[in-house]
Amino acid sequence: MFELDERLSADSLFIASLKLSQVRLMNDTRYPWLILIPQRPNLREIIDLQGDDQQLLLQEISQLSHLLKTIWNPFKINVAALGNVVAQLHIHVIARFENDFAWPNPIWNCGTAQKYLASDAHTLIMRLQKHLEQNV
Amino acid sequence: MFELDERLSADSLFIASLKLSQVRLMNDTRYPWLILIPQRPNLREIIDLQGDDQQLLLQEISQLSHLLKTIWNPFKINVAALGNVVAQLHIHVIARFENDFAWPNPIWNCGTAQKYLASDAHTLIMRLQKHLEQNV
Repeated sequence: MFELDERLSADSLFIASLKLSQVRLMNDTRYPWLILIPQRPNLREIIDLQGDDQQLLLQEISQLSHLLKTIWNPFKINVAALGNVVAQLHIHVIARFENDFAWPNPIWNCGTAQKYLASDAHTLIMRLQKHLEQNV
Repeated sequence: MFELDERLSADSLFIASLKLSQVRLMNDTRYPWLILIPQRPNLREIIDLQGDDQQLLLQEISQLSHLLKTIWNPFKINVAALGNVVAQLHIHVIARFENDFAWPNPIWNCGTAQKYLASDAHTLIMRLQKHLEQNV
């Protein structure tokens, strides 16, 4: 049975459930930062996914990349499956800008997350949900 | 026309040319660290690839992940398309261990690359080439 890792759950906010993955917003206002968590049990690596699910993951990475591009028009998109701290397979899809907090470094282990105000998070999540519904 | 970025070229060694991507070994003995560079012109993002090429990229990421798993049996595989410094699309596929130099942090911007001795690089590249030929 799929179970979301507690740390992923604590650090991020639910946006939507796609065909394969749960989409969550990392609770850090410094970057438009989404994560995809494939909702299958016991995954550590992309290659642990069955072939069809790998295809779905690719589609969902693409979908989130287009979403970031449409809403934020970033200078660069970072896509990464690391999982050294939280081993459960999750893929970061992040909009990067030349004036963002960590630029040009990767964003991990760089300062402290700046959490969203509840009302701001709510507004943003609604916007992202609407976009995902319209662009399946 | 596809042209390899000079910095990618300087920091890594040619291994093979797959259907879509050039495979290169990052010249850093601290990690088994491969990169895939799709050999198409003017790519910055995964979503800049045509659909069929995105499929090929996924296959090649999978192929390299299996290769790392077979040869090094890593604790975790890191897969990442960042490109903040070198914008040309390239995908890192890295074998990670709980006792490696950067663990559990990402490997970028962490100390200085420890280059291979020419003879060691040659032996390793031959081994990787052989493995890729046998596991297309």
